[in-house]
Amino acid sequence: MIKTDILIVGAGPTGLFTVFEAGLLKLKCHLIDALPQPGGQCSEIYPKKPIYDIPAYPEILAGDLVDRLMEQIRPFEPGFTLGERADTMVKQEDGSFIVTTNKGTRHHAKVLVIAGGLGSFEPRKPLISNIGNFEDKGVTYMVKDPEIFRDKKVVIAGGGDSALDWAIFLADVASEVSLVHRRNEFRGALDSVEKASELAKLGKIQLFTEAEVKELHGRETLEAVVIKHKDEEKGQTYLETDYFVPLFGLSPKLGPIGDWGLEIEKNAIKVNNSKDYQTNIPGVFAIGDVNTYEGKLKLILSGFHEAAVMCQYAYQIINPNKRFVMKYTTVGGVEGFDGSKKEAKKEVVQSIV
Amino acid sequence: MIKTDILIVGAGPTGLFTVFEAGLLKLKCHLIDALPQPGGQCSEIYPKKPIYDIPAYPEILAGDLVDRLMEQIRPFEPGFTLGERADTMVKQEDGSFIVTTNKGTRHHAKVLVIAGGLGSFEPRKPLISNIGNFEDKGVTYMVKDPEIFRDKKVVIAGGGDSALDWAIFLADVASEVSLVHRRNEFRGALDSVEKASELAKLGKIQLFTEAEVKELHGRETLEAVVIKHKDEEKGQTYLETDYFVPLFGLSPKLGPIGDWGLEIEKNAIKVNNSKDYQTNIPGVFAIGDVNTYEGKLKLILSGFHEAAVMCQYAYQIINPNKRFVMKYTTVGGVEGFDGSKKEAKKEVVQSIV
Repeated sequence: MIKTDILIVGAGPTGLFTVFEAGLLKLKCHLIDALPQPGGQCSEIYPKKPIYDIPAYPEILAGDLVDRLMEQIRPFEPGFTLGERADTMVKQEDGSFIVTTNKGTRHHAKVLVIAGGLGSFEPRKPLISNIGNFEDKGVTYMVKDPEIFRDKKVVIAGGGDSALDWAIFLADVASEVSLVHRRNEFRGALDSVEKASELAKLGKIQLFTEAEVKELHGRETLEAVVIKHKDEEKGQTYLETDYFVPLFGLSPKLGPIGDWGLEIEKNAIKVNNSKDYQTNIPGVFAIGDVNTYEGKLKLILSGFHEAAVMCQYAYQIINPNKRFVMKYTTVGGVEGFDGSKKEAKKEVVQSIV
Repeated sequence: MIKTDILIVGAGPTGLFTVFEAGLLKLKCHLIDALPQPGGQCSEIYPKKPIYDIPAYPEILAGDLVDRLMEQIRPFEPGFTLGERADTMVKQEDGSFIVTTNKGTRHHAKVLVIAGGLGSFEPRKPLISNIGNFEDKGVTYMVKDPEIFRDKKVVIAGGGDSALDWAIFLADVASEVSLVHRRNEFRGALDSVEKASELAKLGKIQLFTEAEVKELHGRETLEAVVIKHKDEEKGQTYLETDYFVPLFGLSPKLGPIGDWGLEIEKNAIKVNNSKDYQTNIPGVFAIGDVNTYEGKLKLILSGFHEAAVMCQYAYQIINPNKRFVMKYTTVGGVEGFDGSKKEAKKEVVQSIV
């Protein structure tokens, strides 16, 4: 059982900055995230995209924002449970919480903070009626271990970077790679598009453009797909395959958090913003894009503010009989749990006579 | 008359960032500040002090924070009325506002934002009963033009950088410079302390430490001060002088804003935080350290958040019949009023066949 002061579900920018604000109040944090690395969307979806509305950063790449936040919170030694999704939450008699992930990791804390962003990212699935029958029996929405495709036949669908990159990579691993996309144009890095085009010419990738996988066939496991061409003269192609990998991007879903008894409105968690961003369950806070209140703006900077405010109230829950006097970091500096200390240089005090 | 969409009183970090958030909504801003440069306290009081709690800045000097904000807002071409204090506010029949400074500059806007921080900074005055009689008649709390001291006798009081720096500077200008400080220790840059000490040894500065100016004498204008020594054996010194310059630092005062009919609580302006940070006067918002509401944290990052939220409501006041659809800067980029455009590089779209 992992024990901490504040358990944070979601390791995006808001969750990460919470560690800093909690640290100033001498509270320790642990973060759970379904993604394998911290940063949320910023790391997973658009690490190379510039953000322009972070205060005092005329421009910063989303990935760099995450790196800076990780550097800022390092002195407060946050714990991480990554690549696991927070599945169940049970409130204890003493008011504390136990949160268990889909892999069974258990976490215990007095305060629970949901900083889950738009939810956990789940793959977009193509509309093929029997696709559910073949999941993990030939159909997979993510390439976790490319070795499973060695010397097998693979059909990849999609027109973005993921589809291109995996088609290129698997051209040397699988016995046969087919790439199916409903348009002629691909949306990806220039060199990926060129490389895939070259491999197609060499016959190492079979390319089906202006075409879509419409049927899946097989008894126990997947055995073949049917590709329907836009050009009616071409009709359909029946293609034997061991794997079908649709790579249509990720779509956020609130997920199991939705069943924790929290008041939900428009796929977001309602909080009382006039005070502390606490939810209908005492001791559970929701901050960042996952919450909603009158006038809510889904901005990273608002998540930062909500984190700072929320930590003040978390402090009162964790230390009911203590009063914390806030000191500005310009005055009091920052003292890490790792023994580090950052502070402004003292003014020179010197006798003149 | 200066006309703008949003008139901001206070050019500290919160006021500056408001220009950016307003700019994203195509609203123009003008700022008024009593200080001669933008940045508020950060520029005036502690430009060289590091701040540690700006999100994604593990450390940033207050002065650099201001520089970054100025760079970020540059595309939105804010106007500035600097070195003038906003004195009167008159609400017009159409709901707009006219704000006039102590120098008579008039500003007109539909929305008024008070981002006045702790107030306007006013000099701390020594407790000498008749000091008011000599203000501008030999007593001055700020050195604006050092030339007025040429070939005159000057008594400076104080133990910080300002007192040291001006004593050193005026040693070559005035006919006689006396520096009075109630302790032996000075609080200032190391080289200033050393330089002053050296000038004292050369007789170019008369040093009175462990001493205080207690009386002022003169008929029309100041003619002499009485310095009282801590050491009772030394007693008092009667010193003829043309000028007395107490440099005891600046102290914030809410000032004339306090008389604008705004609801004030504990020297701050009450706002309705559950929504938009609007004050009791419709169309007047208060953001940053100058406002108060339940759970208010006086953090720069909270001012940034309040600015973003407030601008959404300012938009509705200025454009009552338009709806603004917020676009993330990662998606829509930033379009300046100066014709500049920042945006993420478009993904490559290329035909593969």
